[in-house]
Amino acid sequence: MTEIFDISLPPFERGFHLITTHIESHLDNLPENGLVNIFIQHTSAALTINENYDPSVRVDMNNISDKLVPEDESFYTHTMEGSDDMPAHFKSSLMGSSVTIPIRNSRLALGTWQGIYLCEFRNRAGGRRLLISVIS
Amino acid sequence: MTEIFDISLPPFERGFHLITTHIESHLDNLPENGLVNIFIQHTSAALTINENYDPSVRVDMNNISDKLVPEDESFYTHTMEGSDDMPAHFKSSLMGSSVTIPIRNSRLALGTWQGIYLCEFRNRAGGRRLLISVIS
Amino acid sequence: MTEIFDISLPPFERGFHLITTHIESHLDNLPENGLVNIFIQHTSAALTINENYDPSVRVDMNNISDKLVPEDESFYTHTMEGSDDMPAHFKSSLMGSSVTIPIRNSRLALGTWQGIYLCEFRNRAGGRRLLISVIS
Repeated sequence: MTEIFDISLPPFERGFHLITTHIESHLDNLPENGLVNIFIQHTSAALTINENYDPSVRVDMNNISDKLVPEDESFYTHTMEGSDDMPAHFKSSLMGSSVTIPIRNSRLALGTWQGIYLCEFRNRAGGRRLLISVIS
Repeated sequence: MTEIFDISLPPFERGFHLITTHIESHLDNLPENGLVNIFIQHTSAALTINENYDPSVRVDMNNISDKLVPEDESFYTHTMEGSDDMPAHFKSSLMGSSVTIPIRNSRLALGTWQGIYLCEFRNRAGGRRLLISVIS
Repeated sequence: MTEIFDISLPPFERGFHLITTHIESHLDNLPENGLVNIFIQHTSAALTINENYDPSVRVDMNNISDKLVPEDESFYTHTMEGSDDMPAHFKSSLMGSSVTIPIRNSRLALGTWQGIYLCEFRNRAGGRRLLISVIS
């Protein structure tokens, strides 16, 4: 059985942000065993799983992604929505639009050092909509 | 319950291609709520979700991926199948071999601007086989 | 219905490693149709699907990822755990923490040339824990 519900994230600034606690606060009554898919309904932000402890990881993740996909490349043709827009699209596919996480003992079975990241690639984004699917 | 079926895509030229309509035309009788996984059975093409409106995004996505993973690097050892082959393998892992999308109200719950892309990384590929899994 | 179980992988050296046979040896009694999610509980290694035949692909995959995310960039701030650590975190998000694969006829429905890779990004990693979720 699949249950689906929405989460609205408030606006975050450009960068990588730990949202595990925010997500878990919406996950009441998880099944004993199952699978969660968290899906972002946008193409200039992404979700990924990475280190949950040292904030310097998130700083470096953002800087590496900016270096990999620079703004204002001379070959870009999709330039109407600002310098951050086309890189944001490519980065969103690099990181991915959803994460899938097992549920055990009615909890997200993340590893000790794993957290869920929102990757915000726009300079001035609004809030982001997530869809949470719980498969039992 | 999981239902699985095949889709054969016709050959596409190298580049990023919007295939949402093609996929949806095979998705009759979706459950009210559920999850779809679309899986490509190849290692030199990929699936991703990105902007569904402006074709310039697909052009730039392709050019960025070509710049990130250039052909004919002197350190490549897997060179027997042509200059496009090894970059195609790496790009397929960068973009991913499947996408997972929630189903709501018996429809793919994509965001307003989201579409499903086939990323074709070979110069002269044949058709591609997809497996669609519908979890209800 | 979702069934979940653990697999412990032995330590692998830095690089890309084919683990399909290892995974399949733990997959007895798969349902006729279904979906498997394989999830790695670590943030400096990853899972992906790629070419299962020519070992030179795995060599080049590793070298391309090292070139894309070099060690010792002057802008890195997360440097306490060694030169390989911050690149390992970024690469793990590039490749992804899980793969999802359809089950048909009680077998993983991989394409002819597809295999499951462990991407080990640390120089001296220990064993890695995987969670396998089988949805029927």
